[in-house]
Amino acid sequence: MLDESPAPKFDRVALIGIGLINSSLAHAMRRHGMAGHIVVGDSNALHCQRALELGIADAVFTDNALAVRDADLIVLGVPVAAIAAVAAEIGPHLTAGAIVTDVCSTKASVIRDLMPHLPAGVHFVPGHPIAGTEFSGPDAGFAEVFEERFCLLTPLVGTPDAVIARVAAMWTRCGMTVEVMDAEHHDRVLAITSHLPHLIAYTIVGTATDLGTELEEEVIRYSASGFRDFTRIAASDPVMWRDVFLNNREAVLDVLSRFNEDFARIQTAVREGDGEALFELFKRTGAIRRGIVGLRQHTAEEQKVRQGETN
Amino acid sequence: MLDESPAPKFDRVALIGIGLINSSLAHAMRRHGMAGHIVVGDSNALHCQRALELGIADAVFTDNALAVRDADLIVLGVPVAAIAAVAAEIGPHLTAGAIVTDVCSTKASVIRDLMPHLPAGVHFVPGHPIAGTEFSGPDAGFAEVFEERFCLLTPLVGTPDAVIARVAAMWTRCGMTVEVMDAEHHDRVLAITSHLPHLIAYTIVGTATDLGTELEEEVIRYSASGFRDFTRIAASDPVMWRDVFLNNREAVLDVLSRFNEDFARIQTAVREGDGEALFELFKRTGAIRRGIVGLRQHTAEEQKVRQGETN
Repeated sequence: MLDESPAPKFDRVALIGIGLINSSLAHAMRRHGMAGHIVVGDSNALHCQRALELGIADAVFTDNALAVRDADLIVLGVPVAAIAAVAAEIGPHLTAGAIVTDVCSTKASVIRDLMPHLPAGVHFVPGHPIAGTEFSGPDAGFAEVFEERFCLLTPLVGTPDAVIARVAAMWTRCGMTVEVMDAEHHDRVLAITSHLPHLIAYTIVGTATDLGTELEEEVIRYSASGFRDFTRIAASDPVMWRDVFLNNREAVLDVLSRFNEDFARIQTAVREGDGEALFELFKRTGAIRRGIVGLRQHTAEEQKVRQGETN
Repeated sequence: MLDESPAPKFDRVALIGIGLINSSLAHAMRRHGMAGHIVVGDSNALHCQRALELGIADAVFTDNALAVRDADLIVLGVPVAAIAAVAAEIGPHLTAGAIVTDVCSTKASVIRDLMPHLPAGVHFVPGHPIAGTEFSGPDAGFAEVFEERFCLLTPLVGTPDAVIARVAAMWTRCGMTVEVMDAEHHDRVLAITSHLPHLIAYTIVGTATDLGTELEEEVIRYSASGFRDFTRIAASDPVMWRDVFLNNREAVLDVLSRFNEDFARIQTAVREGDGEALFELFKRTGAIRRGIVGLRQHTAEEQKVRQGETN
């Protein structure tokens, strides 16, 4: 964990891609006075317009090359698979001394796709604020989304500490706890905590959708019995998630094979009516939950209302 | 859906098994004046004592046979596999005209296990209030847990409408929407909305637990990225869930095989880098979520705070 620093100040921040995370960051930067000017680059003209209307951008460009001009901080908030193209677009227009960071869910692929386009004298600090909701787009952003969550940075060897510290301080000021690890480790951890859960959730919601109209209505009506928790994450942005699986394939396939082994074993227990095996599994999984509650990584509602149904 | 009736009044209600649901029901019955006396039967003496201390029981018995004496309503809130034994215990002591209902998560097995012990003149109305939290025991109960949730009744042929209506009215007064279906259909619907999600959640949390101490700590720390939603339901009562899988095996195995087919297909898409197949699945699952939000079956927090992280 890095030291908490005072809020850093950037003269001109370019937010490339104004989705949930970058629009939330814009709100937080405004609130904490971290940016002299906020410039938005987004190929979607409607998103640019909304950014102006929401007051989270001082200038907007559908051409990312124009957006990054004279920026001392550039935050890439685009789907993982768009990084190479965006990097090629902005690379020639980056100012020496500028810091580039990103908010993508995979790190090794972003480093691979971005670094070839980075001019000398520009630093890249790969980042992943683990925050969000199932909503997308500039209207989905709110400053509080980062509070009490973790942000992972996976800096490259040779990046000056002062540069990493400025990016870390920005996220700390947003309310996040910043931790540093290498990109491969990040991708392995996120494969189990995020990518596998999303793949399973998307699948089971798809399975339910295929049951036919009548049963689908009942699945919706009685979703508080457990299914509901899967539908929230299966409502996330499909482009973003497609790109995650295309760009963290090895790590995802590795945890998938472990999950499959365990799942096959538990299915055998159901088929054979092996109550002892079922009980043993069901008993030991409570400890992880208690760890999450202890770290306050469960939701605000669960802390207050106890209304998350399970049976 | 049955008509909303005024709150029914029972002279002497026997709650057998004072866990989360029956203790919540006791709170709700007190609040709405639905019971002259509330008697608790629970083989766990500590639970009996807590029920008295919490003020949700006028009398407690560790012997269920004593608890049901002179009761005009008996609500069984015990694990599914305990139904046969409890029915054998209480059967000889039930009063003619009494109504027995239950709150179990499977219905066909409960009917199968209970009916042989039911004396003539006593009615059984199988029920399943779809509500709860991951917490267990008499201290976990609160009257509001039922509000805006669904309760399924699976009455047997020949049960007088007036009897079914009294049980329905009780749950309606608790804030639930009551629907009627047959037991086999209930078990099929719950296999997909509840039992399969729980089995998957237990498995993935188990898989993460097996990754070793260091990685397990990181899984906890970064759980807001999706994993967290699985841990809540994987923290549910292990005995209750073991019994569900032992007693709804056929329906669970059926949805399991459908899920496995879909999951194998999506794994192939990841392995082959088939972005189109991934996008198609991820795109269509949002509709079910919108249905759930439309029916207000998502959580209170999601309505207010938008703090459920996903990426």
